[in-house]
Amino acid sequence: MGVERPWQPSGIITLLTDFGLSDNYVGQVKGVILSLAPQARLVDLTHEIPPQDVLEGGFQLATAWEAFPPGTVHLAVVDPGVGTERRPVACLAGGHCFVMPDNGLGTLVFQQYLPEVAVVLDRPEFFRHPVSRTFHGRDLFGPVAARLALGHAPSELGSPIGADTLVRLNVEPVRQLGDRTTGPVVSIDRFGNCRTLIRPEHLPAPPERVVVRCGAARIRGIARAFGDVPPGRTLALFGSHGGLEIAVREGSAAHAWEIARGSMVEVVAAG
Amino acid sequence: MGVERPWQPSGIITLLTDFGLSDNYVGQVKGVILSLAPQARLVDLTHEIPPQDVLEGGFQLATAWEAFPPGTVHLAVVDPGVGTERRPVACLAGGHCFVMPDNGLGTLVFQQYLPEVAVVLDRPEFFRHPVSRTFHGRDLFGPVAARLALGHAPSELGSPIGADTLVRLNVEPVRQLGDRTTGPVVSIDRFGNCRTLIRPEHLPAPPERVVVRCGAARIRGIARAFGDVPPGRTLALFGSHGGLEIAVREGSAAHAWEIARGSMVEVVAAG
Amino acid sequence: MGVERPWQPSGIITLLTDFGLSDNYVGQVKGVILSLAPQARLVDLTHEIPPQDVLEGGFQLATAWEAFPPGTVHLAVVDPGVGTERRPVACLAGGHCFVMPDNGLGTLVFQQYLPEVAVVLDRPEFFRHPVSRTFHGRDLFGPVAARLALGHAPSELGSPIGADTLVRLNVEPVRQLGDRTTGPVVSIDRFGNCRTLIRPEHLPAPPERVVVRCGAARIRGIARAFGDVPPGRTLALFGSHGGLEIAVREGSAAHAWEIARGSMVEVVAAG
Repeated sequence: MGVERPWQPSGIITLLTDFGLSDNYVGQVKGVILSLAPQARLVDLTHEIPPQDVLEGGFQLATAWEAFPPGTVHLAVVDPGVGTERRPVACLAGGHCFVMPDNGLGTLVFQQYLPEVAVVLDRPEFFRHPVSRTFHGRDLFGPVAARLALGHAPSELGSPIGADTLVRLNVEPVRQLGDRTTGPVVSIDRFGNCRTLIRPEHLPAPPERVVVRCGAARIRGIARAFGDVPPGRTLALFGSHGGLEIAVREGSAAHAWEIARGSMVEVVAAG
Repeated sequence: MGVERPWQPSGIITLLTDFGLSDNYVGQVKGVILSLAPQARLVDLTHEIPPQDVLEGGFQLATAWEAFPPGTVHLAVVDPGVGTERRPVACLAGGHCFVMPDNGLGTLVFQQYLPEVAVVLDRPEFFRHPVSRTFHGRDLFGPVAARLALGHAPSELGSPIGADTLVRLNVEPVRQLGDRTTGPVVSIDRFGNCRTLIRPEHLPAPPERVVVRCGAARIRGIARAFGDVPPGRTLALFGSHGGLEIAVREGSAAHAWEIARGSMVEVVAAG
Repeated sequence: MGVERPWQPSGIITLLTDFGLSDNYVGQVKGVILSLAPQARLVDLTHEIPPQDVLEGGFQLATAWEAFPPGTVHLAVVDPGVGTERRPVACLAGGHCFVMPDNGLGTLVFQQYLPEVAVVLDRPEFFRHPVSRTFHGRDLFGPVAARLALGHAPSELGSPIGADTLVRLNVEPVRQLGDRTTGPVVSIDRFGNCRTLIRPEHLPAPPERVVVRCGAARIRGIARAFGDVPPGRTLALFGSHGGLEIAVREGSAAHAWEIARGSMVEVVAAG
């Protein structure tokens, strides 16, 4: 761990949850935050994470946070273990601060940036009381995020823990080995597009000179857009989330090729 | 009615409607508000109230407003009677201000806090013209909410009316009678969880020493979380909305026990 | 083209897209905007435009923008041609600035207000790099909208083009010819209500003294609200979007009368 840089908040707090928008839960979290930090800027990432789907939450977080300025607080609550012994944490990584349950939500972010600072949120004086057993987003994470946006350092809000003790999901990272890059499918969208975290800079050769494999699918070259191939054809392209995805134009790659989350994608230089 | 405290706005305006998010209606209301009060902070509670479901709107309002700081304006528009003689009103209660049609939307809030001040919004100079017959959210309630956030007192914006003249929905309040607490189911969510406004402080005995009844269901003790019972089992717990709810783990309590809105829930000290 | 008025931003940026709310795309656009313009006020119009439905996007834009104060930037991204040669543009019209792909999204706005200034966004120094081929909302339109909100004039951000060179959708404008007004159905909502841009001031006679025709439907007079007619009856009324709509109370006018987008509506003075 290097020298700790002082925490300088941007004043922005992003929110990512599985609360949905039909109930008032997101509104309640915002009310609590604005009660403490009236000047905070609140930005929704998404609240439509499928209930308790920690990996999808982690994917949406990992592909969004870098669009925000350094000093941004990311409040992420997909929390099947709320009310149990799972730890609430705040982690500084890449100049941003992540406030979340310690259940693997940060796995994909922390594969890129190992946290410089991690604390367990064990100081009830920073919580909203009484703390509900089922709504830590409002009573614990929200108030802590507000304090971070006000300029409190993570070290004021909890006790230090080793970044290596954080719970990690069992997701293979992207690996580059000579002329071969591999990475798993981490998210499948509603159209059946299979999304990885393999970025352009990970390719072992220029985009037109690679072969992409996933299950029985074998694709020559990386398309620039869906329109580059005819309907029904399988293609690989860099999606809006920034990573390589396997898709079928006007079809479902997940269904056509029996691809699931965790399926490995391999990119090799064409022979 | 006590001495009227001066109105001190927090600058926050919450919005609750049945407009949905597919059309631009919520955006239009916000545009009108920001035209008048450029510094106002706007927070969505929810816009997914089922069309014209005043009771569900009232439930979502009643379980969210206290998360916001005093001086917050709550703009609530679920308004089947728009364009008819129903009165538009602004009410001060609990240090917050509620701007809404007088159709019972405030019933559950006002069961807790009788309004200190209520006015009928009868001053067209504070409206946006021409006033549409179908969109008072934009042309009447929005502009009035903006003025309240700017510091105008309710008494400047309309003529006083008795709080006892406000339309109330026919919803039983929570009642404590000796070792017995009763209250109706006021909202059923999409999972069939049956939600009341009975709070922990209303219980006639410690949570592990009560019996909860609703229809044919009879539950001993109050669970702390869904995980406390096996799948298929009925439980009572305090939900994220703050009140007691009857649920079936991985099932629908409404369906299993034929519970509907208005069904009475009874909590008694165990014998 | 008249004398160019100086651009004075309100600081508000509205966002309209077909990105939906399940993914983090809208959040990413906001992160990029706030990185450049931390004080900008961001307001969602809607993100639920059906994918690639440029006309519906244009309808939602045309019926919302005037609720905002002059100097507002409207960022609209429904962009089937992203990554192709379609031009990105910024247009000043009616005192507001529209940032969008040049694919006809502005058609309905520009039928009312011919742009005073139009520029093609051809200055990469104002983009976010690397520019994704599939996400110009984040990498091109967002950064440009941020600069406009900061006070940069459109003429600083791109090269002037003739307003007459902008792509227009083939949508008939509203026409008034003596005692006859015509205009097409431009949007059909999920209830089958058929919406036009014919406004009250376009009527050839008082509302109670007109006949409205569309396909085989023939309606005498304009109702003030749905409640004015019995269930199942067809009516014409001014909807919340501000224009005349053909509806069936508790039914679908589109289905009952085989009305589609583009179907012409005719309003004549009653004989």
